[in-house]
Amino acid sequence: MSVSAVAADRSVCAPLPVLGRDVLVPLVTGGEAVYAALDYAASAPALQRVWDDVAAYAPYYGSVHRGAGYLSQLSTDLFENSRTTIADFLGCRADDQVVFTRSTTDSLNLLAAVLPQGTRVFVFETEHHASLLPWEQRAGVEVTYLNAPRTHGEAVDTLEKALAEREPCGPALVCVTGASNVTGELWPVRELAAAAHAHGARIVLDAAQLAPHHPLDIAELDVDWVAFSGHKLYAPFGAGVLAGRADWLRSADPYLAGGGASRKVSRRTDGGVDVEWHTTAARHEAGSPNVIGAYAIASACQALTEAGFDTLVARERELIAKVRAGLAEVPEVKVLSLFGDDAPRVGVLSFVVDGWNSSHFAAALSAEYGIGVRDGLFCAHPLVRTLLGSEPQDPGECGAPEAAPGERSLNAIRVSFGAGTPDEHVDRFVRAVKELVTDGARWNYRTEDGRCVPAA
Amino acid sequence: MSVSAVAADRSVCAPLPVLGRDVLVPLVTGGEAVYAALDYAASAPALQRVWDDVAAYAPYYGSVHRGAGYLSQLSTDLFENSRTTIADFLGCRADDQVVFTRSTTDSLNLLAAVLPQGTRVFVFETEHHASLLPWEQRAGVEVTYLNAPRTHGEAVDTLEKALAEREPCGPALVCVTGASNVTGELWPVRELAAAAHAHGARIVLDAAQLAPHHPLDIAELDVDWVAFSGHKLYAPFGAGVLAGRADWLRSADPYLAGGGASRKVSRRTDGGVDVEWHTTAARHEAGSPNVIGAYAIASACQALTEAGFDTLVARERELIAKVRAGLAEVPEVKVLSLFGDDAPRVGVLSFVVDGWNSSHFAAALSAEYGIGVRDGLFCAHPLVRTLLGSEPQDPGECGAPEAAPGERSLNAIRVSFGAGTPDEHVDRFVRAVKELVTDGARWNYRTEDGRCVPAA
Repeated sequence: MSVSAVAADRSVCAPLPVLGRDVLVPLVTGGEAVYAALDYAASAPALQRVWDDVAAYAPYYGSVHRGAGYLSQLSTDLFENSRTTIADFLGCRADDQVVFTRSTTDSLNLLAAVLPQGTRVFVFETEHHASLLPWEQRAGVEVTYLNAPRTHGEAVDTLEKALAEREPCGPALVCVTGASNVTGELWPVRELAAAAHAHGARIVLDAAQLAPHHPLDIAELDVDWVAFSGHKLYAPFGAGVLAGRADWLRSADPYLAGGGASRKVSRRTDGGVDVEWHTTAARHEAGSPNVIGAYAIASACQALTEAGFDTLVARERELIAKVRAGLAEVPEVKVLSLFGDDAPRVGVLSFVVDGWNSSHFAAALSAEYGIGVRDGLFCAHPLVRTLLGSEPQDPGECGAPEAAPGERSLNAIRVSFGAGTPDEHVDRFVRAVKELVTDGARWNYRTEDGRCVPAA
Repeated sequence: MSVSAVAADRSVCAPLPVLGRDVLVPLVTGGEAVYAALDYAASAPALQRVWDDVAAYAPYYGSVHRGAGYLSQLSTDLFENSRTTIADFLGCRADDQVVFTRSTTDSLNLLAAVLPQGTRVFVFETEHHASLLPWEQRAGVEVTYLNAPRTHGEAVDTLEKALAEREPCGPALVCVTGASNVTGELWPVRELAAAAHAHGARIVLDAAQLAPHHPLDIAELDVDWVAFSGHKLYAPFGAGVLAGRADWLRSADPYLAGGGASRKVSRRTDGGVDVEWHTTAARHEAGSPNVIGAYAIASACQALTEAGFDTLVARERELIAKVRAGLAEVPEVKVLSLFGDDAPRVGVLSFVVDGWNSSHFAAALSAEYGIGVRDGLFCAHPLVRTLLGSEPQDPGECGAPEAAPGERSLNAIRVSFGAGTPDEHVDRFVRAVKELVTDGARWNYRTEDGRCVPAA
């Protein structure tokens, strides 16, 4: 889409109100700026609507599931209705389970824990560590890491080939992201699901970056599970979701052992303890549930639906086009991409700047423009190294390799945004990139506690 | 302490303001009542101070640990300072780690996951399922369940004997509650810790019920770990804590595999993946942390400290004495106890009422008096059955065995309270118990979806 086409389409809708939209932050150059939160891919601000819902509920908070009091029953209903709202939002099938976890990472670790013995897992090296690493931690699970593809077709072919080569018997699982947390590029989920199923494998969709930016329908995509986080979906209250097929969840040992998951516990005559576990979602939700976290996610799902998710997508596409057009005017900027310029994507872009250490560049964006982005390897080390063509280096405590200004980039800068982002934030970002590249930073930056900060 | 002594000591301090203190709930008998939240042992209401702190921070929420923006750095500081505040609150030793989890259940499951191979675990059958069940779920861990003691001395002797009988080599862990979630009675933690250490074992304190009601000092008690939950400590935002010795935590596989826990990830030439994990608390905190949940706990710790924890304890003792004196006047009421009438306890009491099904009694307290208590087996089935002298029954979906009114109790009623409880709530509770026992319920109750509710 060209910039002029974007301009003609302006104002599809306004950004959704989020907390922190008026927060002022100090600049090292003097004065203050309204904070531009452009790190949505890590954590998005809470929607005002989500906050208002949580604030309205908070006085009615009570213990769920076994309390006899009015607020306990209200809270139980709210918690279980949140599960239903989320199932509807995801287009869940009738027999799918929605399990509340603490994050996408937790959801995928839960799925790893319920894999049948001997499961073969297939995962591209391009995944976030949360979807790359949980599988091999499990005894009896063998993981095949697939090389980064350069087209959607190559992704499907690579998977097909790997699945065809396995022994055809035994359980298998494919794990794939819906949208890359590094490049924002969409993956061909439906096609990968079809390939997986054609070869008798199941597939889990890491929707951490997809769910906040794009409608998804678990039945229509024909994926077996979906995992996502509240804190990237404008609901940062410590909850996440794993939704999908119930059978493996139902037959595995409980993820957490404790109250809520256990239906009946009794001493045996030999001194041991017998436990009968629940077979519902409660099986994997031991302990008092995070009612506020679950409700916040449900509230966000409703807010996105009511705002018109397609309209939000159209608006986000405009912001993406603006950023890409702006960065394209700066020859020193190289945007990272697996699938090329025309690949559909969500509002997540990573780039490097010739002659700049990425950490210093990100620090200057913050200190001189009040813009919050991220630098590093984005918990996707193999992917970023592949995109940068660099070798593994010691990443330092926080994953950000040290390099003097002017050295070749060992890490990248990521800008990300979403439903709460006003045009001004991305306009300011593009202007800041141009000014920094043209004029240089106005301050020096040094590293302190693993962070780049203005030198005193 | 007699009732008159309590009366003379009145007004040690006012209850701490909590959310929901003015919430009105409908009564089946007509009209409304201010809700009396007397189920603190399951979930306590948020302190107003905790809510205010969370609300003040929420607009400044940002991604932690790797974000370059101002709010990310502020949020990172807030998160890590919360860890320090909690370490101070618990009296942690210099080399203790504070790991954020989602609850006590999660904390104890984490500890179970890091036990060295071959660890022998010793646990009384009287524990909550969260501290009873996680251990046996781990391969290579053998659990010895100890019978319910009837005095503090018997508890220590039982543990001593069991530890002395084990093969003296190899790691061992004792898990014990600080205050029972059923009877509220305190356990002799310091003495049990001394016994454990004398026999080369370590000890973890389940402080879910102790931490909200009583100052505790990990070094002074000489326990190796402490676990507790935010939602029982007036901070119901989905976070919990495991604090203590770093060595087993540092050398075990990460609890969750993913970003944040992984320091460096790279492909091997054979196609596999090498991972270098962090050795700090981050090792077990993969995924974006629950910043609001962690901050809420720190805020609650500060609020309790600033209010004067000893004063709060003194006030809670008065409420306990009131409830016990009131129930003692009703011959039909039997309060459950392991250690006898004089045992020190926190604001948690369970009881049965002759001639009443406990679920119906709890439903009447809610529907006719606006009082929220809990009925059931309180996720401590073996303990409650021991106290009731009953046999294991099918507990129904929610752990509450069905019995017609007048049958022998198969479950119990629990009343629990804390720093936010006004005298009026416990006064109303005592009056309600007396009226129900004397006059009977004014409505009939039936079971619906596992709950007892007024019959239409």
